[in-house]
Amino acid sequence: MLNNPRADRVKAVRALAKRSVRTRTGRFVVEGPQGVREAIRCAPDRVIDVYATRASFEKFAADFLEPARAAGLYVHECSDEVLAAMADADTPQGVLAVVRDEPVPVEAVLAGEPRLLVFLTHVRDPGNLGTVIRAADAAGAAAVLVSAESVDAFSPKVVRSTAGSLFHLPVVTGLPVEATLAALREHGIPTLAADGAGSDLLPDVDLSGPHCWVMGNEAWGMPEELRAQCARVVRVPIYGRAESLNLAMAATICLYASAGAHHPLRGDR
Amino acid sequence: MLNNPRADRVKAVRALAKRSVRTRTGRFVVEGPQGVREAIRCAPDRVIDVYATRASFEKFAADFLEPARAAGLYVHECSDEVLAAMADADTPQGVLAVVRDEPVPVEAVLAGEPRLLVFLTHVRDPGNLGTVIRAADAAGAAAVLVSAESVDAFSPKVVRSTAGSLFHLPVVTGLPVEATLAALREHGIPTLAADGAGSDLLPDVDLSGPHCWVMGNEAWGMPEELRAQCARVVRVPIYGRAESLNLAMAATICLYASAGAHHPLRGDR
Repeated sequence: MLNNPRADRVKAVRALAKRSVRTRTGRFVVEGPQGVREAIRCAPDRVIDVYATRASFEKFAADFLEPARAAGLYVHECSDEVLAAMADADTPQGVLAVVRDEPVPVEAVLAGEPRLLVFLTHVRDPGNLGTVIRAADAAGAAAVLVSAESVDAFSPKVVRSTAGSLFHLPVVTGLPVEATLAALREHGIPTLAADGAGSDLLPDVDLSGPHCWVMGNEAWGMPEELRAQCARVVRVPIYGRAESLNLAMAATICLYASAGAHHPLRGDR
Repeated sequence: MLNNPRADRVKAVRALAKRSVRTRTGRFVVEGPQGVREAIRCAPDRVIDVYATRASFEKFAADFLEPARAAGLYVHECSDEVLAAMADADTPQGVLAVVRDEPVPVEAVLAGEPRLLVFLTHVRDPGNLGTVIRAADAAGAAAVLVSAESVDAFSPKVVRSTAGSLFHLPVVTGLPVEATLAALREHGIPTLAADGAGSDLLPDVDLSGPHCWVMGNEAWGMPEELRAQCARVVRVPIYGRAESLNLAMAATICLYASAGAHHPLRGDR
């Protein structure tokens, strides 16, 4: 039972809230039962340590903590104070895991003949990035591509808002924008910029083939020179009086339009 | 020029961050240029006072502050300190307005033969409520209905996250859930519960007629007895490995599916 919130081990976990420490160690923290369970289920070889309070042990033993131990993972019981000292969330949910980052090269994703991708070229809000990762997972996308200019995909807020989806599909980070758009072109994957300035309306676009949605910045969208490098610039129609949709909503609508086009048979699920 | 952050007028505005004060006075605060502009443009008779810093005056005079003055509204210049003392946001954006709440009876909405509505029966997160109001506006919904159990639609966080949409369509609040479902039935408006437990998949549902989406709680969805009072229980398909979508994403996808069915002609906008 770990019960000293000032122990070096506790400080080392807490330090992973800093991007510089994550980059140096190649580790990040997953907080809450949903994320920890998905890490254990989908990426057990990347889970370094799991920490859980007594109450969490009682609640989640059968669900994922005992299976984790049975699989040889290190599952530590700790006091509520220790968990609070490790966690970034204001209301830590009694369980967290330290996980190894395992970078996936974009070439590996492109070589897999992906049918649906989304590339975030300049997302700044952690909640937006997490929501897009979750939407991409739900829509059956092959991967999420994230530029070097974007917010860090392994920050506590992003990881939380993915609700476990971070372990369901590759999230490729640190990408150079123009070279990535060129690589998509070379692999014959049309790039669709989603932007309010688009001339093509979403319902008019044929989404039946492979493609990659390209999203800009929350505040200023996508610069003209980037839009010009995409195959099409697509606008989500506004049927009412709203000026725009936010980035996560627009991405969700676009990704689900693609999923609908890729799974045209009704009643098949 | 208002420059005393401890003045009674400043305290009275700041007090509107409290629900009890909003209820007693029938007023709420709109922060930031987008919301203030939409209030001035779309509901000028409800705008009681506008407060702007010198920098905001220079930036937004032509856009909406001078038009507001020309229309007879009270536009006050105030110091940065006064604006910060009035505002709820950590980074107030230099302009805010005190606006009168103007309750719309649900009967008035239903009498208008609405084609698309959304009813939030138990939404707790202010960001989710604001996002759904914005999505409903974008999708061309006739109104947003909000139950008495839900978070207050006029809290600063909700108002900010609507990005002005609060002034684009009626947001009817304080509704009793069962009586409202009954009223929708009586007006011949089918109710579609959006819930992961639904037996009908979204792409299989005919959305060409009038209908009202009914959304539950972020954490536990909708209780069985409420779902049973809806005409259908509809599930957004999950094509990947995500367990679920969050409430705002699910509502956005459903509302846009409805908008697409209501505006079937392509290339018409």
